Amino acid sequence: MDPYMIQMNGNSNLPSVLDVHVNIGGKNSKQEKGKGRKARWSVRPSDMANNTFNPIRTIVDNMKLGTLDWGGHCTPHPHPHGLVGKDGRDPTVFGNLPTDPEVTQAMKDALDSGKYNGYAPSIGYLSSREEIASYYHCPEAPLEAKDVILTSGCSQAIELCLAVLANPGQNILVPRPGFSLYRTLAESMGIEVKLYNLLPEKSWEIDLKQLESLIDEKTACLIVNNPSNPCGSVFSKNHLQKILAVAARQCVPILADEIYGDMVFSDSKFEPLATLSSNVPILSCGGLAKRWLVPGWRLGWILIHDRKDIFGNEIRDGLVKLSQRILGPCTIVQGALKSILHRTPQEFYHNTLSFLKSNADLCYGALAAIPGLRPVRPSGAMYLMVEIEMEHFPEFENDVEFTERLVAEQSVHCLPATCFEYPNFFRVVITVPEVMMLEACSRIQEFCEKHYHCAEGSQEECDK
Amino acid sequence: MDPYMIQMNGNSNLPSVLDVHVNIGGKNSKQEKGKGRKARWSVRPSDMANNTFNPIRTIVDNMKLGTLDWGGHCTPHPHPHGLVGKDGRDPTVFGNLPTDPEVTQAMKDALDSGKYNGYAPSIGYLSSREEIASYYHCPEAPLEAKDVILTSGCSQAIELCLAVLANPGQNILVPRPGFSLYRTLAESMGIEVKLYNLLPEKSWEIDLKQLESLIDEKTACLIVNNPSNPCGSVFSKNHLQKILAVAARQCVPILADEIYGDMVFSDSKFEPLATLSSNVPILSCGGLAKRWLVPGWRLGWILIHDRKDIFGNEIRDGLVKLSQRILGPCTIVQGALKSILHRTPQEFYHNTLSFLKSNADLCYGALAAIPGLRPVRPSGAMYLMVEIEMEHFPEFENDVEFTERLVAEQSVHCLPATCFEYPNFFRVVITVPEVMMLEACSRIQEFCEKHYHCAEGSQEECDK
Repeated sequence: MDPYMIQMNGNSNLPSVLDVHVNIGGKNSKQEKGKGRKARWSVRPSDMANNTFNPIRTIVDNMKLGTLDWGGHCTPHPHPHGLVGKDGRDPTVFGNLPTDPEVTQAMKDALDSGKYNGYAPSIGYLSSREEIASYYHCPEAPLEAKDVILTSGCSQAIELCLAVLANPGQNILVPRPGFSLYRTLAESMGIEVKLYNLLPEKSWEIDLKQLESLIDEKTACLIVNNPSNPCGSVFSKNHLQKILAVAARQCVPILADEIYGDMVFSDSKFEPLATLSSNVPILSCGGLAKRWLVPGWRLGWILIHDRKDIFGNEIRDGLVKLSQRILGPCTIVQGALKSILHRTPQEFYHNTLSFLKSNADLCYGALAAIPGLRPVRPSGAMYLMVEIEMEHFPEFENDVEFTERLVAEQSVHCLPATCFEYPNFFRVVITVPEVMMLEACSRIQEFCEKHYHCAEGSQEECDK
Repeated sequence: MDPYMIQMNGNSNLPSVLDVHVNIGGKNSKQEKGKGRKARWSVRPSDMANNTFNPIRTIVDNMKLGTLDWGGHCTPHPHPHGLVGKDGRDPTVFGNLPTDPEVTQAMKDALDSGKYNGYAPSIGYLSSREEIASYYHCPEAPLEAKDVILTSGCSQAIELCLAVLANPGQNILVPRPGFSLYRTLAESMGIEVKLYNLLPEKSWEIDLKQLESLIDEKTACLIVNNPSNPCGSVFSKNHLQKILAVAARQCVPILADEIYGDMVFSDSKFEPLATLSSNVPILSCGGLAKRWLVPGWRLGWILIHDRKDIFGNEIRDGLVKLSQRILGPCTIVQGALKSILHRTPQEFYHNTLSFLKSNADLCYGALAAIPGLRPVRPSGAMYLMVEIEMEHFPEFENDVEFTERLVAEQSVHCLPATCFEYPNFFRVVITVPEVMMLEACSRIQEFCEKHYHCAEGSQEECDK
């Protein structure tokens, strides 16, 4: 069982009356004369709680993982792609990708200053927002402090953007495959999710025609996630311009999830979406989590790009008001921001990316050689998607069963892409140490060889 | 103007069509044949954003503060009770109440360990939840890790509790005077607020009869804030038992906002509400903010007390699910928790409380001697409420005008208690340095003497 799920003890049946302080008959009769309140305990979670649904959690929790003990006691078998209960987005799990010492030092300096213990404004210190603005400012997409809202991680950034843009009953456009949080947040707020397709055969570019066909008068925003989790894809400038053209034509604002911005391999280039349009209003979400390898610190941001004043004061004010509900991120991290942005050495970023690129190449090469698998080469982020040619694995009904058995037989844990609404694929995390990556690929190979069957009428393929 | 409100430039009128990429006529006619989507920009904030309303912000922002520059340029006049734009809950503003060096060291140790950079479970590390559980465990209200949820500050703790307990259209019972966040959060979620009265003449005890009269079949929970912001009051064991009796009789669960727990003066005792009932289900909210004087660090918690299994699995699961929307608090603070709880010396807590008690006595004594004012002596927390005998200040229509003029003439800033839905009082923050406190009291005295008028038919009072 997932060790951080709350465990309950015993009986969940509720006695119908639990208040022992009063005579029940007397009270009930009094109540009946009064407002008719039923004086018995009945405490039920809200619709919002019931509608908050994390597909990864649910799918992973229901996976049949045999008798394996995932607490770390099956050491002869490494589990290179994250432990059950982790969602795989955490680059720090294996200790091979520590943050830079300058980042840690910046935090200590902020602590020693004694200046960052009190409340910050709910959208973050002005000085910290200025730092983010000048760091991400460019002539094509200018930014000032007023365009920056600091949040408790990129998750809260996305939450605030959805909360300000959409009412219950409206819809948002979400990539398939895509990060499950979009649906989790939207459905908790009664916002409908419409899935647009990414095309593996086109390096996960958007099926623009299908995207545009989904838009209707209730569409509140389009989420563009670039670079992509789970695909590891990076959109070209040309493709981004086409996406913007759809948004402009249909007058749909964009939520750009750019948390993996700048995490692209040397043969690709990351183009911040807002640099390519002067008319489409864009809320770009980012944070320290991935590039600086400190996802636990929960420092995210929203960059407001609105050069045609379409969001206007109202959306800006709305974001400020929503930020006041729980106040902003930890002030020590805010206080450390300036040094984190300016003192982290270039080698740090470079080393992270070379490592990821090298691991991606290794993994892609190894998996591409395995009959029955079709990996899609990534260009950035920390992931790689692999198609399972299900017709060659008739033992398994779907990707969930395939990955379940891969854990059970080989202790290799990959998330089934059903978690990303994209069946018959699985996701590999490429942040694991190289030796683990190689070992995992070799076990996946062993697993596939064991279970591979020729599909009917394709004997030539089996002979290869 | 509040320096962290986003400022807008220029015109907020929206041009009716802004998309320049397409032929508008052609597109519109195509659209009309299609789904009838209006292809023009119209991006409006959601109802939730519009309904998120912070009364303090609104009242303070609208106060006429004359030509005073609140950026710190009116130095001959100190502003001892917080600056405009701060809400006064911040004990760190004047630098006289730093946190303990052990608390800072605990953070550095957590940073140096390198163990707390990754994602924690959304409800917090198991080890950190165990620490909180054992710190707050007592035989009358036992706690285990499964009963603890770590949150991004006490604000998020309260948000999660309200979100799990109440649906839109239900109501919650909120103290008057009381902390404005309850209403802000509730109304943003479409939950109705019903105000129950605290009685200044009974040291701000609850008017229990009036409280009970408010309860109906739509009442989702009762918020009990003890010790109180803004009153500085601390409920006796006897009074708490009576509150619990109402909750038990009416079967209403309690959200206990105990963020000022243990911050009571030596002549009072803080009784955690859950220690006094074995049947009323209670969600107790707390955090590091006040007792450890680090409100900016955003580490809060929910303690689930449910010995009769009335919340049951459902409410616990609901809280876990809701916590997954933005994940938990900063992992460095979580990693530091154990040392913060165990290494902070007793003198630190003792010194904070002696300072607050001494300041409270000073302030109470000074203000009680001023004709026209009636302070209520506090027993804990960081505040003191002062009644303005408005009949003696006919120049001022209400507490907002009174405090506006107090700022304008004396540079002493107190929040009008209209911010807490309690007109004709103002709130004094007692965390300021003693010399400032004395200076402020003497200026308040000067101000009151200048504006005091005898009420009609009460000549004897003016002669005193």
